[in-house]
Amino acid sequence: MASETHSKTVIDPFGTTVIEDYERLYQEFGIKPFKPLLPEMLNPSAGMRRGVIFGHRDFERVLRAMKNHEEFAVMSGIKPTGEFHLGTLQTAREVIYFQQQGAKAFYCIADIEAYEDNRIPFERSQKYAIGNVADLLALGFDPKKGFIYQQSKETRVKDLAITFGRGVTLATMKAIYGERHMGLYMSALIQAGDILLPQLKDFGGPKPTVVPVGIDQDPHLRLTRDLAFKFRRKHNFIPPSSTYHKLIKALDGSPKMSKRSPMTYFTLEEKPETVSRKIANSFTGGRPTAEEQRRLGANPDICPIYDLYLFHFFERDEDIAKLYGYECKGGHILCGEDKQRLIKLVLDFVKEHQRKRNQYIDKAREILGAE
Amino acid sequence: MASETHSKTVIDPFGTTVIEDYERLYQEFGIKPFKPLLPEMLNPSAGMRRGVIFGHRDFERVLRAMKNHEEFAVMSGIKPTGEFHLGTLQTAREVIYFQQQGAKAFYCIADIEAYEDNRIPFERSQKYAIGNVADLLALGFDPKKGFIYQQSKETRVKDLAITFGRGVTLATMKAIYGERHMGLYMSALIQAGDILLPQLKDFGGPKPTVVPVGIDQDPHLRLTRDLAFKFRRKHNFIPPSSTYHKLIKALDGSPKMSKRSPMTYFTLEEKPETVSRKIANSFTGGRPTAEEQRRLGANPDICPIYDLYLFHFFERDEDIAKLYGYECKGGHILCGEDKQRLIKLVLDFVKEHQRKRNQYIDKAREILGAE
Repeated sequence: MASETHSKTVIDPFGTTVIEDYERLYQEFGIKPFKPLLPEMLNPSAGMRRGVIFGHRDFERVLRAMKNHEEFAVMSGIKPTGEFHLGTLQTAREVIYFQQQGAKAFYCIADIEAYEDNRIPFERSQKYAIGNVADLLALGFDPKKGFIYQQSKETRVKDLAITFGRGVTLATMKAIYGERHMGLYMSALIQAGDILLPQLKDFGGPKPTVVPVGIDQDPHLRLTRDLAFKFRRKHNFIPPSSTYHKLIKALDGSPKMSKRSPMTYFTLEEKPETVSRKIANSFTGGRPTAEEQRRLGANPDICPIYDLYLFHFFERDEDIAKLYGYECKGGHILCGEDKQRLIKLVLDFVKEHQRKRNQYIDKAREILGAE
Repeated sequence: MASETHSKTVIDPFGTTVIEDYERLYQEFGIKPFKPLLPEMLNPSAGMRRGVIFGHRDFERVLRAMKNHEEFAVMSGIKPTGEFHLGTLQTAREVIYFQQQGAKAFYCIADIEAYEDNRIPFERSQKYAIGNVADLLALGFDPKKGFIYQQSKETRVKDLAITFGRGVTLATMKAIYGERHMGLYMSALIQAGDILLPQLKDFGGPKPTVVPVGIDQDPHLRLTRDLAFKFRRKHNFIPPSSTYHKLIKALDGSPKMSKRSPMTYFTLEEKPETVSRKIANSFTGGRPTAEEQRRLGANPDICPIYDLYLFHFFERDEDIAKLYGYECKGGHILCGEDKQRLIKLVLDFVKEHQRKRNQYIDKAREILGAE
């Protein structure tokens, strides 16, 4: 693992993950490119079609279940440390997509991780959790066909972590996560519990399970796949599959949005004025002058504005293709116009989302058993 | 900690603890001798009076509560890996003693530790647990004034462990327990949860708590006292106190009874014939010939038979004093006679204990919620 420190590709679920070279993920981490599977998907998600979902582990197993109309599950979640942002939106969309394709859907509020990793007391994360669940419902998650829960209240998950403890050496933990405090290691085992929860008898037993996550969560997948194997006799676990989405660029052009820099991202709960201002002030792949841009075209590959269209705000693939090749690279749009059009789309989305979300707050409280 | 490896005094809750030098415990581990507190005890236990309880941490705090008739608790437990033996008997006696002195009594069935440390599945440890609880009740534990529970079923204990995770670095774990697997570390945090459980709001909040244990459990106490301090703001924990009993010598004369050598100990469930044979075959501190023994006297300080009288089977202190000085050292008894007298006492005790225990099996099932 020593070579990782000399490279820009470091995968760390509890820190900052920067991927500068997706090829290395394929070669060194054993993640496979998603693209070759795309032709086999009957009805791929927007993220799959557009290459936002770039990689996977063992997704063939889930694909087979989908094709054969066999039982399968989707599992992912959110760390309740704040409002829904564009990264959690991506995960939620994928979970909902698989639910609509017939998966039993599991959505975990990772409040133990929020406590261990971010020092957020459970009383506080509970408040965020209510909003997060309302967001999920507003986006289309069907609670009747899914299971939403908080780690801290789900005994089965904690008990799986206790079971798994015996199967993990300290050396393994250090190799995967580095030298961390005990809470983070326990939180990692609890997440292995989350990922394997859909396969417990209470939920119908072993089944292919896909975990759509950001690449920063891959260490949890590696650990969990190893544990699924080690405890296969007791539980008959099928190793979980995963899909990985790219991270949307931060508004300052850096590789990852960060809570520490509020100008680099926006949440779904922000005021329209703030969202507009952040987008208007965003970095772009544009040229220094309008004349140059018209003559030479701009660069969508480094542009967070393009990413916003690509990941979330253009519904039709044709619009993406036109933006990328004709409008942006072809110099037929200036960044200012492009931003104004995006602002309108984002504000329309956010307004409509907030309206729906407000209607789901009570339902969210009910699901989480909150007063 | 390096010096420990050069000494015979190694304290390891998950391994073999051999104490060859009690002075070092006082000097290096911060344990205090119990003897100076004895004159202040209104009604000390047999173990205290006879020096079986040799050391403590912070027991003054509990003593004060006892004197002032303030609320206090006693907490200890058993790892359900087999039947009650003479070590668990010692702990149980101390718990019951403190309960009779007015303590709220907590008795933990450490089935998570049995799983992590001894690979005992929960279904199996449940069976031992029922017997262990029946033993405890037969010895006089009053369930109406106490709380008996299994770790695996007590959410509050697991949640305390999760809370504590954030307060423990890997370096601390390694310094206390050495390089172990994750399950043992988690089990240690869960035991910290056990020890502090009596201080949760559900049980009336912070209170002095005494933990009577074998010296091999001291690392858990050190960890827990540290955690009580670190999480004092949230829970107002009072650092737990502890008392330490000496380990009864094995029947082969070695310092510790061991499950791996069945001839070195007996349990309370063994057949009378087996118990008799084991005692009859025991090592003693006697002389090679009867003549020498009568002339020079024997050595009770190295004798497991003497230990059995001292720890458990002579009720009156005068009988102990007479055995030690006059009969044994004075050469007025031969080891054969001494063993025969002991066998009778042990068999009477075991017979009566088994009778009572059988009456408590149903109650034990009920307490543990077992079918």
